[in-house]
Amino acid sequence: MAAGQGRDNRCVEFHFDFISPFGYFASLQVDALAARHGRTVAWRPMLLGVTVLKVMGLKPLLDTPLKGDYLRRQIARHVRRHGLQLRRGPDDPMMDPRACARAFYWTLAHQPALARPLAQQLYHRYWVDGEDLSDAQRIAAGPLPPGLDPALLAAGSAGEEAGRLLRAAVEASMQLGVFGSPTVVVDGELFWGLDALPSVDDWLARGGW
Amino acid sequence: MAAGQGRDNRCVEFHFDFISPFGYFASLQVDALAARHGRTVAWRPMLLGVTVLKVMGLKPLLDTPLKGDYLRRQIARHVRRHGLQLRRGPDDPMMDPRACARAFYWTLAHQPALARPLAQQLYHRYWVDGEDLSDAQRIAAGPLPPGLDPALLAAGSAGEEAGRLLRAAVEASMQLGVFGSPTVVVDGELFWGLDALPSVDDWLARGGW
Repeated sequence: MAAGQGRDNRCVEFHFDFISPFGYFASLQVDALAARHGRTVAWRPMLLGVTVLKVMGLKPLLDTPLKGDYLRRQIARHVRRHGLQLRRGPDDPMMDPRACARAFYWTLAHQPALARPLAQQLYHRYWVDGEDLSDAQRIAAGPLPPGLDPALLAAGSAGEEAGRLLRAAVEASMQLGVFGSPTVVVDGELFWGLDALPSVDDWLARGGW
Repeated sequence: MAAGQGRDNRCVEFHFDFISPFGYFASLQVDALAARHGRTVAWRPMLLGVTVLKVMGLKPLLDTPLKGDYLRRQIARHVRRHGLQLRRGPDDPMMDPRACARAFYWTLAHQPALARPLAQQLYHRYWVDGEDLSDAQRIAAGPLPPGLDPALLAAGSAGEEAGRLLRAAVEASMQLGVFGSPTVVVDGELFWGLDALPSVDDWLARGGW
């Protein structure tokens, strides 16, 4: 409905962690979902290690009895449902996602149009290609969006400014109440989880509940 | 698609706890969802206190920082979205759900056709009317499905057989891997959470993924 009536330029925010498989799955759908309602998406990498482990006091989901097994099955069937091919599984060793998140925020500050393509490529390289992207050199060594200089990116994302930008972004994410990946924030409302995307669709279609 | 091609008599199982608001919300939708695909639903009360607290070692969701606030907002907006009127809120004192679950399984054993109507009525009395249903006398004192004798129900659900049936049901639920409310089990697959109902719909429409 709203989509036909002209564009609504308020951003939909997409909060995610690069190490989150459900964040990756959502990243493949969220832009098209928002576009159906004339909305654009601001991508916002965050760090589950800060929110979940430190603030919430929970252990990692995959290590939680019963729930861990459920999530493994949920990932496997989502992969089947959408015909994805992943070299990385949920039980493979996990990278430290900070280098990817720093690279993202440095790019957002200096070449904003390339930040989302970079995030998409990093997500693809991590989950589909199975690359380890835990430091700036590795990130810069692989495919990057055209126009992004590998040496500048490596230096920039390893520097102090990138660290400051990431800390501010994680803090802002937590201030919004974000605690999981993916979380979509729309009109001040949080929608947590891959399974919440149909609710985001319904919210946008109705202009809120 | 499947709905038009004759009935599939394999049951969809609906696992829920009477104290779970999301279980209540799902209970209002699950039968119609399954019926669209020619399937029927077996209602299966379980006890989060056993699965979540004892087996998973988690604290109650509403007491978890960040996530608790999120769930309160999610409940409020679901209530608005569906025009529900609840006398009970997520932070009101919680009843012990065992009496309701015992009443259900006693009824399922002795008057099976009345078990689901009883569960629907108990859910309504607890969440909409705000009743305390923490013992068999209180359950029997209020409205019940026609044909269910209050004195027999009170005596039966307080007895040893009901306790045994409930323990077996909770154990069976955990054996399936159920850990949260609501959980829908279809064709051996678990779908956890109110937000997973659209995925159940998709699974049933496609005959699996």
